[in-house]
Amino acid sequence: MFSCWLSQLCRGLSTPTRRTTQLIWSSASRSLVLSSQRRIPELSSFVARTNTCGELRSSHLGQEVTLCGWIQFRRQNIFLVLRDFHGLVQVVIPQDEPAASVKKILCEAPMESVVQVSGTVISRPPGQKNPKMPTGEIEIKVKTAKLLNSCKKLPFEIKDFMKKTEALRLQYRYLDLRSVQMQYNLRLRSQMVMKMREYLCNLHGFVDVETPTLFKRTPGGAKEFVIPSREPGKFYSLPQSPQQFKQLLMVGGLDRYFQVARCYRDEGSRPDRQPEFTQIDIEMSFVDQTGVQSLIEGLLQYSWPSDKGPVVVPFPSMPFAEALASYGTDKPDTRFGMKIVDISDMFRNTEVGFLQDALSKPQGTVKAICIRKGAKYLKRKDIESIRKFAADHFNECSLMGKLRLECADLLEARGVVLRDPALFSFLWVVDFPLFLPKEENPQELESAHHPFTAPHPSDIHLLYTEPHKVRSQHYDLVLNGNEIGGGSIRIHNSELQHYVLATVLKEDVKLLSHLLQALDYGAPPHGGIALGLDRLMCLVTGAPSIRDVIAFPKSFRGHDLMSNAPDSIPPEELKPYHIQVSWPTDAETEKSSSNHPCRSES
Amino acid sequence: MFSCWLSQLCRGLSTPTRRTTQLIWSSASRSLVLSSQRRIPELSSFVARTNTCGELRSSHLGQEVTLCGWIQFRRQNIFLVLRDFHGLVQVVIPQDEPAASVKKILCEAPMESVVQVSGTVISRPPGQKNPKMPTGEIEIKVKTAKLLNSCKKLPFEIKDFMKKTEALRLQYRYLDLRSVQMQYNLRLRSQMVMKMREYLCNLHGFVDVETPTLFKRTPGGAKEFVIPSREPGKFYSLPQSPQQFKQLLMVGGLDRYFQVARCYRDEGSRPDRQPEFTQIDIEMSFVDQTGVQSLIEGLLQYSWPSDKGPVVVPFPSMPFAEALASYGTDKPDTRFGMKIVDISDMFRNTEVGFLQDALSKPQGTVKAICIRKGAKYLKRKDIESIRKFAADHFNECSLMGKLRLECADLLEARGVVLRDPALFSFLWVVDFPLFLPKEENPQELESAHHPFTAPHPSDIHLLYTEPHKVRSQHYDLVLNGNEIGGGSIRIHNSELQHYVLATVLKEDVKLLSHLLQALDYGAPPHGGIALGLDRLMCLVTGAPSIRDVIAFPKSFRGHDLMSNAPDSIPPEELKPYHIQVSWPTDAETEKSSSNHPCRSES
Repeated sequence: MFSCWLSQLCRGLSTPTRRTTQLIWSSASRSLVLSSQRRIPELSSFVARTNTCGELRSSHLGQEVTLCGWIQFRRQNIFLVLRDFHGLVQVVIPQDEPAASVKKILCEAPMESVVQVSGTVISRPPGQKNPKMPTGEIEIKVKTAKLLNSCKKLPFEIKDFMKKTEALRLQYRYLDLRSVQMQYNLRLRSQMVMKMREYLCNLHGFVDVETPTLFKRTPGGAKEFVIPSREPGKFYSLPQSPQQFKQLLMVGGLDRYFQVARCYRDEGSRPDRQPEFTQIDIEMSFVDQTGVQSLIEGLLQYSWPSDKGPVVVPFPSMPFAEALASYGTDKPDTRFGMKIVDISDMFRNTEVGFLQDALSKPQGTVKAICIRKGAKYLKRKDIESIRKFAADHFNECSLMGKLRLECADLLEARGVVLRDPALFSFLWVVDFPLFLPKEENPQELESAHHPFTAPHPSDIHLLYTEPHKVRSQHYDLVLNGNEIGGGSIRIHNSELQHYVLATVLKEDVKLLSHLLQALDYGAPPHGGIALGLDRLMCLVTGAPSIRDVIAFPKSFRGHDLMSNAPDSIPPEELKPYHIQVSWPTDAETEKSSSNHPCRSES
Repeated sequence: MFSCWLSQLCRGLSTPTRRTTQLIWSSASRSLVLSSQRRIPELSSFVARTNTCGELRSSHLGQEVTLCGWIQFRRQNIFLVLRDFHGLVQVVIPQDEPAASVKKILCEAPMESVVQVSGTVISRPPGQKNPKMPTGEIEIKVKTAKLLNSCKKLPFEIKDFMKKTEALRLQYRYLDLRSVQMQYNLRLRSQMVMKMREYLCNLHGFVDVETPTLFKRTPGGAKEFVIPSREPGKFYSLPQSPQQFKQLLMVGGLDRYFQVARCYRDEGSRPDRQPEFTQIDIEMSFVDQTGVQSLIEGLLQYSWPSDKGPVVVPFPSMPFAEALASYGTDKPDTRFGMKIVDISDMFRNTEVGFLQDALSKPQGTVKAICIRKGAKYLKRKDIESIRKFAADHFNECSLMGKLRLECADLLEARGVVLRDPALFSFLWVVDFPLFLPKEENPQELESAHHPFTAPHPSDIHLLYTEPHKVRSQHYDLVLNGNEIGGGSIRIHNSELQHYVLATVLKEDVKLLSHLLQALDYGAPPHGGIALGLDRLMCLVTGAPSIRDVIAFPKSFRGHDLMSNAPDSIPPEELKPYHIQVSWPTDAETEKSSSNHPCRSES
């Protein structure tokens, strides 16, 4: 497997293997053929090797090559398998007396040591060819060898990495990165982002603009990390997104902005979240909702790995209300049916007590999910578990959506294929409400997304009378039941923005005076979107966690288990920032530790 | 000027104008022709306009177009000039009665208001063509017009922005961004970085890997911003560069890494520095110094704007010792001569008192700079100012280097062209010392660059006997007297790294135990470099400050003058981070304020 997909990653061959295969580099290399008569990237330019291990084929027979790589495997001091990022190649250890020193180096070096070998590409003897290995027709007859770095005994073998606990993988991340899957994930991520850049920058004239990450706290920005400055009591904050900056760029006439933007959110220890994450951040002037959606459809179609595609556009669109009614969630997985059906009318005159009871309540309904062949596949204990799940989640309005997914899990556990992992089902969810009642005080409203979202043009008159009924020009992009992006047309009128902030949301407008002023000085109509790159790559690669598509992720408690960040700092190093630690009392410590049931991560 | 270079920026025309002109998009569009038969980026896809203002020519005559832009200028209610990022176009305001409402909109909208107009491209009447304006042969006969946003009275006109104080420009950055120069700088930056990505990723197989910015404090990292976490007393820090991560990626077998990396350095208020800045960060396995240098030469050649080029490679190389001796600095401006000459030998037997005096001291020398035609150009007061400059800086070892630049300034003030601003003189400075005596205690050594730098192979034996004599494998890239990059071959041997850290530098190795351990587990030989993108763009564009190539820079005191960051935070928002502000006493405040002679920035 290893060398197989890696070769294809680098060469763009088209023979598919089980899950990875022919990658986006195939199209990258096609365009390179056209633009510079070079078929593939030069992988050995500027360095001590002539070739990569993984690229050698029968066409190289007789060539003198120099290879650098890691010792993956050694058999009876006769062969060794050398590995680099590109693949594996078999090296024949010389057995004759004059080459004794070469033999000594290659036989004594521990596994995972780094060596450089020079020799000739020869054909494997008849019967010894390995058709499963891309380099399986050849081997290297070594003339010279050099031990570049010896490896101490590893905590475990590289090929076993995926089987180890995640804490161990994160602690030795540099070893984990040598694994097939991590190499694949990071290289695919790099290539896919490069294709997105080509689409935005070269094909559609977007300008890649870097925006600051040392910013000031936004109103209600409780999830923003703070950074003390050298001025007493003054703090920067790390923004959750470049939202204000990208709107200001539109006011500045940049017209089309994008950025692969680092964003920050301090959410404590929520599973599968990272304190820093990356979004493909986009903003355009003079655009409407359809324009942004078409751009994104084209972007994903262009950058999508060819072996995962094709991406069919336009993506279907569904109003928020319908998503809630039919799927019980604002991010429906549309790879399968099993929609929620309102069957209240069938039971209006029922004499079944609990149904009567439900229907007699205000807005009481009876809803059902039809599980086709459920009777055939689901066992008694499955029905029991569904019943228990429903009881446990009864008062959550998203119960039906969760129940639908729970039933899908059960069916799949019984062998029914409902959600094809090779299927990518994109969906726009639109017509969100602009405001929602505050959880802690339902008489007051808060933004459903953010306060810069423009109201739906048909509902604008309701803003001054029944703001809770106003739909917004917000749109979410959903893929297989995951929200992978969201955006909106923004408010470009200063008075309207002031009204929303001050009158509807009752925010302190002073904190946003610079933005309100900017809207007064000739702000064009504008809108945009942000795609969550980590989540997207996770879905594309089929990785179990976003940590598998990030080179150095934090643990679920926000720790870097390799370097041990965050770490203590001597008080004198805090002095220039005019802060000191408020050590919690013992009682507080106990309370906070009981909030973290899993105090240790390893 | 405005529409002229902007048109060329977008279309890749080749007629040069005074300073900007034919840009890197010319080559980008060439390759697009080959790869997709599309000549230029589509600048009006997905939006409400059919064309940009700046692109219209005689070839568009008769076409119905819709344009969106800002009202730049209005003449006698008959014409107005509409502007977008692409250029300017003349719009004829209809005077007939049926179009009264259109006329009203276009005549009443204040300057810098945003409008949408639809109409026909017509030829200007004979005698009214404007050859200085790229769209000067045509004008728009308007049929409909829409006021998209009205503009309040501006604090000053857009075209006057560059003349205003920088504080005012930063406060209204969104208006400043509409200026010709800022649009040019940001668009060129985006294009040049895109070309660099193509070179690294598509041509040479580099992998773009994002590394964390929430990290832990590095030993001696006094210039790193700290970020309190939700664990009492534990802090992240914002790294000055991804140095450790890029080395760990090499240990992880990534082979070729690059990243356009955000870096952070808290240096208080040094002029022309930014607390956050961007570097083109590169690391390769199995590479030597020559390999990295060739890569970078190719990178700059490939990405260099064609109207600034051509970039001639290889760049010349100069040992550190020679740079100091001949130019009095480690970053010589080699656009001109006037080298420093040691003329001590000529004065060995002199009877001139002060020369005798100098030569009698240990390592005393007499040095001279020959200013050709100095007698012709320099006036008595120039000589006086040189004498005073020398006296003022007498005890700085870099005196001669500064004196050389001072003399160049004086000559140029008298009309001699020494440093051609159109000339780009690249230089590698090599063979730096590995260690330098600590300023505060010259008996101890500190790293000249960083502790991961490998010693020069010829000097490795000196490491254990006379470490101060060891040269390093560090290299700096210098452009016109500015350091624009630096890198090195790194130590890949764990024992050597431990020796350097513990024995030579006397650092606490525990803080770097993860790195030392990684080197033990099969680390390949590796090296890399980082280019300072802000400084590089500053030199390429000829901007007076790096703030002119950054969309939202901080002021020299680290303030965002637009949003007023850093800002105060209510104490309760600091609670989750277990910190509190240590308010300075009155005495301390006074002291700190006297350290900032310029307390206010506006």
